[in-house]
Amino acid sequence: MSKNTQTLYQHGTLALLVPGLLAGTQTIGELMHHGDTGIGTLTGLDGELIMRAGQVYQVNADGHVRIVGPEEQVPFANVHYQDDRAVGKITDQNFAGIKATILQVMGTSNVFYAVRLVGEFDQVQTRAVRGTQQPPFGTLAETAKAQSVFNATDIAGTLSGYYSPAIYGGATSPGFHLHFLDDEPTFGGHVLDAKVRRATLYLQEFTDLQLHLPTGNEQFRQEQFNTDEVLRDINQAEN
Amino acid sequence: MSKNTQTLYQHGTLALLVPGLLAGTQTIGELMHHGDTGIGTLTGLDGELIMRAGQVYQVNADGHVRIVGPEEQVPFANVHYQDDRAVGKITDQNFAGIKATILQVMGTSNVFYAVRLVGEFDQVQTRAVRGTQQPPFGTLAETAKAQSVFNATDIAGTLSGYYSPAIYGGATSPGFHLHFLDDEPTFGGHVLDAKVRRATLYLQEFTDLQLHLPTGNEQFRQEQFNTDEVLRDINQAEN
Repeated sequence: MSKNTQTLYQHGTLALLVPGLLAGTQTIGELMHHGDTGIGTLTGLDGELIMRAGQVYQVNADGHVRIVGPEEQVPFANVHYQDDRAVGKITDQNFAGIKATILQVMGTSNVFYAVRLVGEFDQVQTRAVRGTQQPPFGTLAETAKAQSVFNATDIAGTLSGYYSPAIYGGATSPGFHLHFLDDEPTFGGHVLDAKVRRATLYLQEFTDLQLHLPTGNEQFRQEQFNTDEVLRDINQAEN
Repeated sequence: MSKNTQTLYQHGTLALLVPGLLAGTQTIGELMHHGDTGIGTLTGLDGELIMRAGQVYQVNADGHVRIVGPEEQVPFANVHYQDDRAVGKITDQNFAGIKATILQVMGTSNVFYAVRLVGEFDQVQTRAVRGTQQPPFGTLAETAKAQSVFNATDIAGTLSGYYSPAIYGGATSPGFHLHFLDDEPTFGGHVLDAKVRRATLYLQEFTDLQLHLPTGNEQFRQEQFNTDEVLRDINQAEN
């Protein structure tokens, strides 16, 4: 079967993290049948995942990078088959400038995109959440407080992730959701700030979002989601 | 290829109807490659569509039912491959009671479902929108005003459509979105009210939502969506 490069695959919905539905509901092995590139987190919001070329890396709250096995589980992740194209260079821009440049190149804020920025960075600040790996799990707001923040300077690596239109905020993380992994890889996480020196921007536009829900998880089925609360907490925790 | 009965396919996002992006962006022929059952509307919000067994019917604002050809286009539609199962009878209930019963049988409000209620109805009230088939199109609120309302009593037919969780309100029509078509078929439309005498309820649960966006449509790409406004207008127009 040819790989579907038009579809952004998502397991779980960001909304389920808000009240603390952090149980892993899909294995890495299953997830990686839907793509070779992506981002996500493990059971209990444990660390920050970066998938590249079919390999899955976790940056944990100690700042360590390790390879994740196929039996480990995710409550939430996005993957796709990489088929992006270089659209230009970005030089000497801060994080706000990077995001503004990407949006300008995209030419729309209503379509899902994969974003990859590969090159040299003057500075990168990331965070990684320290997840509780056993239930009971805390809420997203509580769990996100237990995060470590890391800083690197003069580093070569890749900033990668997705752009999701704001109107799908209950399903996805609205706007940019970007992780970083350096070339080694020994440094990474969820990007809080960055200053690019010189890097190549790659974009991949999707026609389709495939939203896969953990319908077999009884806690997910019974949760009373509050849409307003979900959007507020997602914006606070993910940005 | 075996038919995927786990996926609810959606062309377009309900949000695009709000500011009046009513151009058809997918043909019926293309749409029906993703399912044999569903609901939708034609270019300009013209009438109410009901798909059953691969056939597409339009109820127009004159109340007429006609078969829709493969070259006609939709701005928004949902289809799936029918694989539902009978879960019980519903007798002597009004519309609120019907919806409450379905939710009770579903046992969750967080999962996408196809709903089909086949039998005899004491009373059904429907509406069909009179769409402007040529641009410029009005907004959803403006266009939805130009609707006809129809009433039938003692009628045998099928109430069919979808349940979508509220947290996906920007992408889908939150809650129940139900159309009706009688057995002839000569009567139908978007259901405003109903009283069931005796009917069998069929449900089909989906693990996946495939959201297909009209990424080639420049007006869609450039629209500045206001999430709050979108959710408000969808609730007003679709309920």
